[in-house]
Amino acid sequence: MPSRDSSAGEEEVRGPAHIPSADFTRALAEFGDALGAEGLLTAAAEVAPFRDPFAFPGWHDFDPSAVLMPASVEEVQAILRIANARKVPLWTSSQGRNNGYGGAAPRVAGSVVLSLRRMNRVLEVNEESAFALVEPGVRFFDLYEHLRAIGSRLWMSVPDLGWGSVVGNTLEYGVGYTPYGDHAASQCGLEIVLPDGDVMRTGMGAMANPKAWQVYRRSCGPSADGLFMQSNFGIVTKMGVWLMPAPDCYMPGWLTLRRDSDLETLLERLRPLMMDGTIPNQPMIINAVCAASALSGREEWYQGEGPMPDEVIDRIAAQPGLGRWVMRFALYGDEKIVERQREIVADALGTIPGAELTFSKYDGHALPEFVNPHERVQAGVPSMDLDRMTRWYGGEKGGHIGFSCVAPITGRDGAELRDLVRGRLNAAGLDYSGVLILGRRSMIHVGLVVFDTEDEAQAKSAYAACKALVEPAARLGYGEYRSHLDFMDLVADQYGFNDHAQRRFNERIKDALDPNGILSPGKQGIWPRAFREGRPTSAAAEQEERTT
Amino acid sequence: MPSRDSSAGEEEVRGPAHIPSADFTRALAEFGDALGAEGLLTAAAEVAPFRDPFAFPGWHDFDPSAVLMPASVEEVQAILRIANARKVPLWTSSQGRNNGYGGAAPRVAGSVVLSLRRMNRVLEVNEESAFALVEPGVRFFDLYEHLRAIGSRLWMSVPDLGWGSVVGNTLEYGVGYTPYGDHAASQCGLEIVLPDGDVMRTGMGAMANPKAWQVYRRSCGPSADGLFMQSNFGIVTKMGVWLMPAPDCYMPGWLTLRRDSDLETLLERLRPLMMDGTIPNQPMIINAVCAASALSGREEWYQGEGPMPDEVIDRIAAQPGLGRWVMRFALYGDEKIVERQREIVADALGTIPGAELTFSKYDGHALPEFVNPHERVQAGVPSMDLDRMTRWYGGEKGGHIGFSCVAPITGRDGAELRDLVRGRLNAAGLDYSGVLILGRRSMIHVGLVVFDTEDEAQAKSAYAACKALVEPAARLGYGEYRSHLDFMDLVADQYGFNDHAQRRFNERIKDALDPNGILSPGKQGIWPRAFREGRPTSAAAEQEERTT
Repeated sequence: MPSRDSSAGEEEVRGPAHIPSADFTRALAEFGDALGAEGLLTAAAEVAPFRDPFAFPGWHDFDPSAVLMPASVEEVQAILRIANARKVPLWTSSQGRNNGYGGAAPRVAGSVVLSLRRMNRVLEVNEESAFALVEPGVRFFDLYEHLRAIGSRLWMSVPDLGWGSVVGNTLEYGVGYTPYGDHAASQCGLEIVLPDGDVMRTGMGAMANPKAWQVYRRSCGPSADGLFMQSNFGIVTKMGVWLMPAPDCYMPGWLTLRRDSDLETLLERLRPLMMDGTIPNQPMIINAVCAASALSGREEWYQGEGPMPDEVIDRIAAQPGLGRWVMRFALYGDEKIVERQREIVADALGTIPGAELTFSKYDGHALPEFVNPHERVQAGVPSMDLDRMTRWYGGEKGGHIGFSCVAPITGRDGAELRDLVRGRLNAAGLDYSGVLILGRRSMIHVGLVVFDTEDEAQAKSAYAACKALVEPAARLGYGEYRSHLDFMDLVADQYGFNDHAQRRFNERIKDALDPNGILSPGKQGIWPRAFREGRPTSAAAEQEERTT
Repeated sequence: MPSRDSSAGEEEVRGPAHIPSADFTRALAEFGDALGAEGLLTAAAEVAPFRDPFAFPGWHDFDPSAVLMPASVEEVQAILRIANARKVPLWTSSQGRNNGYGGAAPRVAGSVVLSLRRMNRVLEVNEESAFALVEPGVRFFDLYEHLRAIGSRLWMSVPDLGWGSVVGNTLEYGVGYTPYGDHAASQCGLEIVLPDGDVMRTGMGAMANPKAWQVYRRSCGPSADGLFMQSNFGIVTKMGVWLMPAPDCYMPGWLTLRRDSDLETLLERLRPLMMDGTIPNQPMIINAVCAASALSGREEWYQGEGPMPDEVIDRIAAQPGLGRWVMRFALYGDEKIVERQREIVADALGTIPGAELTFSKYDGHALPEFVNPHERVQAGVPSMDLDRMTRWYGGEKGGHIGFSCVAPITGRDGAELRDLVRGRLNAAGLDYSGVLILGRRSMIHVGLVVFDTEDEAQAKSAYAACKALVEPAARLGYGEYRSHLDFMDLVADQYGFNDHAQRRFNERIKDALDPNGILSPGKQGIWPRAFREGRPTSAAAEQEERTT
């Protein structure tokens, strides 16, 4: 655990446990020389926003020591030179809003956060081929405002909260809710600074003057883009992102279901509609507890101990516009086609007994100021409206963890995950807030575990309950697509085919590209060689070893 | 150049120039021991089909020495053990039908072809989530017959010729012509034997018992699939492929344009239809020469010297059903939606002056025996009907080379590529057979250079003309997505950003995974370290070096 000794008047910033204090201090001085005052944050108050925002007060396992904020590729390269020489672990983030999974916080306490927030230019918007080229500090809000400012007819895809980085969200396999909502699949062309400072561009960007860097995802030969997703192999400094020409007609829909078991029916009927694109965006299905948490505090419904009883959940579900399960989704395009898609959806889903299906309809070229935040997000308009759900248990400092499994779109799989996650969370005294996000052939079931970060006992119980789900889910064949720092290793352990062949492969790539192990050690369970062998070392210690 | 000395009664098979004959002979014996007679081909007549089928008779630069045909992953591993020990270069292919780019032939003469033709099982077809899991020897024909035999309602995507491998085509970024025609994007889950024999599965296949291996393309952490496309980093032994539920309505369309310059107008009007999925498949636009070559021989139109004059091309274009440019495409889905899409297409494209637009309409659940091969291929029904175009210059032994550039979908880019390729080919005395294959945001312009393989002068001129196009195209910003063995290095040279950072990255991966450099050296310009340093070596030579 890193700490600050303020007895000497000025705070002493301590790095990772394996790096001697004097050595780390020298590295910080070098970082400061390279980046200037704007580029190095060491004061406790400035570093605090880069901690896990949902850590309870006494938890410092993932605290960073300092923050670097380069303003250019050249400054990123300068940082890497120093970090390689001093063997200082860096933890890269774009905006660092990976909340629920650790925010900007590093896996190894005392690591230096490399934040790309200051590299925030929208480098290009191409109206003709409908794409943008952005730096990692560009937030969804920034890109949206840029598009509106230049009078673009293009829509973007946004997650529920708009403060995150377009690049960072994409690299973490984040999702949005327009037809371009599989962000990793809507990315086209990366610029990457490799751990040794070399700058590479993927796809057609490997040419000096490419005409197709942001329209074609490959070049001639292998495609490396996927290697830099959820990865510690390099630092992404530019990314192409596809944008959607505004559709003539935008029709968000809302489906409510009466019974808990309707989830199975819904998923069975939804699968063909997802596969053939009748529903082209990424529908989100949430249960009554999750829906209620977006609108209200828990105490409005229930003040008792333990998980909320079924009768109370039924009472929530009976509210107008709610249900045991609620699905939001949307249709986009030519009005006649959208109207026909509405009919198909109504025939398939509106006929589930007790279901209510409603639609709104908008001119895609002249969107209103939406009242409903779900209509906003599905039109790619960023906001922070859906941030309230972490306050479910009261208090302003709510937090959440995402337990996020991937499954085929079937009723069986939906029921199995619901029952597993609900059963375990309830047994731990926690409510089950369930969210399913649908893709073309797969869905992600997120057990959104909400807690009050200032209630240490509840927070610990939430983390423990999430961790305890990993192995039972894996035994059923479900793997997490993303995980909190606290159980990254455990999640990685579940990918065990052929003695963890995938992890061993990643380790070989890691050692080849980052022999000093400086980039985000431990990310997604990928550890550099020295850490794997239990002897992470500092440059000073190594020097000493050589001379004795 | 490898050769066979048959003076001793039994043929002696010679390997690559850098491997001493005795050493190579021992390696072959070991391969034979591991695989049995069925698994090792050395007789000239048996090896000949693995040469470049379009090489003129005296050209042996890319001749293989022998062919290995493993029947299982274990046999692939056995091959790798021997090849690593003896440092024998292997050249992997699935079916080896990469015609126009070298077929099954290796970059380094005398390499041993590792053909996966015998690993030809369809391991699974999942009707519910619509995918198959196949081995690399499975041809498009095989998968199609399998689907029909089990009464599947699923469609597959096929290229124009159905004899190739589903896996091999996908790994080479091959395309088909249904909405699933971007084959690399319709792949989900790989099993790979790495050069050291380790077996890895990508995505959710990294779990021991995954439920989502073929429905979700990632796991937790980096995604390596792209690394094994057009690559020499591993041997793909299983692949998931997404299949398409039969659409209610299938409506192939045909658009003919009168004037050469209509291409620019077409591309401008087509771009938005591609981007929003109004046209969901991969349309193919061909010029009059290409269209004529699919139907007839050149001598029916012109017997003169040099490239076919414009008047003759106009005469071809004036034939019923033809034009200066012809586009095939298709619509799929709910009948009312398809009918509306037809209207939108007619408004956008049918209104180009002189254009003729026709459609056919079929029940997707009860396809007829198609007469028109283009209607067949766009319904995912494999055939060999479109094989005749290589016989343009007469003779049964026609060949072709593909000069295949990627570009944004704009009139400017289409015209620039057409003018460049036509100008250079005509100057070399060759006809310009132009093919554009459209994707969502990009297109591939293929200059299909057709020649008579038995006319050595013409063949040499065709290869020279293709090679001579690479640098001028790159200067304009266009890179090849695929290339013939003969100019793979030249194509790779064009990807020159930051001192060829992408190639240097690939070399680092290559050295880390394949330190002995045994897998497909030179593929896509990626050479193992020893070859880069100009000293590929044999195990025997190395042994000798160590002892002296």
